[in-house]
Amino acid sequence: MEYQPGLHLLTTLYTDKSELLQHSANWKNFIQEQISKYQLTEVGQAIHDFPTGGFTAVHCLTESHISIHTWPEYGLCTCDVFLSNFKKNNDNTTQSIMAAIHDFFETHRHESHMLRR
Amino acid sequence: MEYQPGLHLLTTLYTDKSELLQHSANWKNFIQEQISKYQLTEVGQAIHDFPTGGFTAVHCLTESHISIHTWPEYGLCTCDVFLSNFKKNNDNTTQSIMAAIHDFFETHRHESHMLRR
Repeated sequence: MEYQPGLHLLTTLYTDKSELLQHSANWKNFIQEQISKYQLTEVGQAIHDFPTGGFTAVHCLTESHISIHTWPEYGLCTCDVFLSNFKKNNDNTTQSIMAAIHDFFETHRHESHMLRR
Repeated sequence: MEYQPGLHLLTTLYTDKSELLQHSANWKNFIQEQISKYQLTEVGQAIHDFPTGGFTAVHCLTESHISIHTWPEYGLCTCDVFLSNFKKNNDNTTQSIMAAIHDFFETHRHESHMLRR
């Protein structure tokens, strides 16, 4: 079987929910729910809260990764959802999680990209 | 000061060095050297070796992240280097690390993208 490229969605989203950008706690609960809901397999995570506010987090999955880097001082974050299509096609899951991220942050503007890789 | 978008380089690279795709040990040494060389700040990492070969790794940096997902059975890996330009412009570092990754794997073909975000 040939390599089945996955879908990599990347966004820079703008939000007025600055408390969600300040600390990782809400994000952590939210993304764990998503990972469970879609039966993804997390094999590690690294989350760092900056002392001055904002956080950076990467969730390592057998299916690839989810990452977020927040900038509360600018009211934005950069966020990636990248799921491989090795065992099954995860494209719908990738899109559903990115949609859930926009709902979570109540995004009012975003610049987004989609890569097949 | 306005938000200073960073440079996000993404590649799918093909290599004949299948031993470098099988296990994370060589990658781990290599990328730690790069992180030190360019004085980046790693705040966490998650590395998972698959029992059947291949590995997935994310390195969480205060500057954003580096990720890799290898597919030894296809002789390829997907790799990202994303460094913000918050405190200083890291564009040259982002490009140097991606070039070092291609050297490390002796890439013979790649599909690459560059995003400003």
